[in-house]
Amino acid sequence: MARRRSGKVTVRAIATEAGVSIATVSRVMNGHDYVAPETRALVQEALDRLGSTAVIPGSASEDRPAGAVYVRCPYLLTDYFGMIVSSVAETLDLHGRRLILSAGDAAREASVISGLPDDPDIAGAIFIVPSETNEELEELRAQGFPFVVIDPRLQPPRDIASVAASHFAGARNLTAHLIELGHRRIGVIGGPQEWLASEYRLAGHASALADAGLLTSPELIVRNREPVTDWGYDSARRLLDLPERPTAIVAFNDKSAVGALRAAFEHGLRVPEDLSITGFDDLYLSLSTLPRLTTVRQPLEEMGRMAVTLLMRLIAGHTVEALHIELATHLVIRDSTGPAPAPR
Amino acid sequence: MARRRSGKVTVRAIATEAGVSIATVSRVMNGHDYVAPETRALVQEALDRLGSTAVIPGSASEDRPAGAVYVRCPYLLTDYFGMIVSSVAETLDLHGRRLILSAGDAAREASVISGLPDDPDIAGAIFIVPSETNEELEELRAQGFPFVVIDPRLQPPRDIASVAASHFAGARNLTAHLIELGHRRIGVIGGPQEWLASEYRLAGHASALADAGLLTSPELIVRNREPVTDWGYDSARRLLDLPERPTAIVAFNDKSAVGALRAAFEHGLRVPEDLSITGFDDLYLSLSTLPRLTTVRQPLEEMGRMAVTLLMRLIAGHTVEALHIELATHLVIRDSTGPAPAPR
Repeated sequence: MARRRSGKVTVRAIATEAGVSIATVSRVMNGHDYVAPETRALVQEALDRLGSTAVIPGSASEDRPAGAVYVRCPYLLTDYFGMIVSSVAETLDLHGRRLILSAGDAAREASVISGLPDDPDIAGAIFIVPSETNEELEELRAQGFPFVVIDPRLQPPRDIASVAASHFAGARNLTAHLIELGHRRIGVIGGPQEWLASEYRLAGHASALADAGLLTSPELIVRNREPVTDWGYDSARRLLDLPERPTAIVAFNDKSAVGALRAAFEHGLRVPEDLSITGFDDLYLSLSTLPRLTTVRQPLEEMGRMAVTLLMRLIAGHTVEALHIELATHLVIRDSTGPAPAPR
Repeated sequence: MARRRSGKVTVRAIATEAGVSIATVSRVMNGHDYVAPETRALVQEALDRLGSTAVIPGSASEDRPAGAVYVRCPYLLTDYFGMIVSSVAETLDLHGRRLILSAGDAAREASVISGLPDDPDIAGAIFIVPSETNEELEELRAQGFPFVVIDPRLQPPRDIASVAASHFAGARNLTAHLIELGHRRIGVIGGPQEWLASEYRLAGHASALADAGLLTSPELIVRNREPVTDWGYDSARRLLDLPERPTAIVAFNDKSAVGALRAAFEHGLRVPEDLSITGFDDLYLSLSTLPRLTTVRQPLEEMGRMAVTLLMRLIAGHTVEALHIELATHLVIRDSTGPAPAPR
């Protein structure tokens, strides 16, 4: 980390000294291809004048390893986030890149991303469900710092690379499966209002209903503030207490489906004979319930691998054709869904 | 990472050049306290002669940040391992140390630890359930490299710092709870034969039985090769098929308890009326089953925090009084245990 000793020499200072843009300095420092040798020389001269010992990748004096990748996952590394981070770690290792990790609920408070472009040890970053605003991400992008967002919570700006699961198609297939089983009155335990995933899954649900000539009725949609078991339980109870209760419940994720299973049990309802229940995510959890959950598999490992692949291309300065990548989800039919019960 | 540019200058080479031990060089390079100024000067001179640009912490030329901590968890970051890594990450952040992560099943193949002492960017390491042999760990220790082992799979050498949960006491309390409920015939789904945790938990079980004047009978102990749900299911079936079946099953962990719940269900047994079942770990999973699992809470976050605290003391060169730290587990009584059924 000796290059940090010259940490006071910021990318901004180098850019001013060299008379080039900040983005150009970043491209040079990160070893992008297709940087003109003259430009590289300008930056090297600026570095020398500023008394920096930093080494430009590809220059003669280089024999350092490839820069590390900063991975930020401001959540506990549960079966969901932990799977993504494991896959990112394994894939970075194949690329010979070190992973610098910022993780855990406490990490949410830290504001670190604006310092990343000035850190010569770091070549790029992966942000998992970032808590940063789109403005903060755009600012980072404007500095030419390579990064990829996994599972963006909000619609990401057009020129920011992102990898997500196909929430819409997954939810649509799930509801289509229930309709096929004869269900017409389907309750929905939705996700938090402001999440992109909540919106897309609800849209997928409505789309499948529309295909069958049905409309969603607002009383059948309950919003989860936090998609965890207790909220799933409370939401399911509200749905089951309706004068005309649903014959199936689509839960936002596996954790809230587990809460719905408990609510059904307490209502004396058998799953799936009296009530079908579905999850989303296909966590280990969904295999552990009795009955096992019908759910939608999110490609967590593939998301991690794809994010690293995209990032490596960005770091190398290649043009990336599709900046927003959506990976296929698929329906996993298990034992918690069955034919709709005969009308009472 | 420019200090890596002098990466060919190994700790061994510096020690030879300076005429001091490898351990001393490590202490100097890692900024330990209580290193005599003359010793520090010897090492600095050796570095200069070897053409290294490495900076000795505490020397005048230092203004670099504190060295990073290498965290190795050669498993998928599930609800178990991910919780430990999250806690390590949050605690390192409080100490202003970067976390370099090696994780995922694929990481198990890599043999990286012997290179750590020569890496000037790394001040110390935390190994979670290390796959390395005790010999490899001892070799690392002999080089004066500071590291801590979390949840050692095997009995760690005496001078290697480790943090684990109290498996013995946890298992003992669990079986005592079952005995109090009137259970006398208790089946055990044990863990893998070679694991320290398996041995200690079995000893705790036997100890509680002995307190009640009972002996374990070998037919009631089934070994898990892998403590996952399917193995728990198979093991429980074997126990339930015994001519005189147990009234309670102590599973190695929550995942195998989930398998046992399924086996009980298929046998037409109600839990806990006909059969009590217990887990170990207190994962999210144990709250998600019907009935919720009685289990033993492993202090995963505390283990992460304690490992970082220990490591920081080792890096600072302080003497650590207790090198093997065992953190308390505690019994969590939920709905899967009840009074022993009346004899048939």
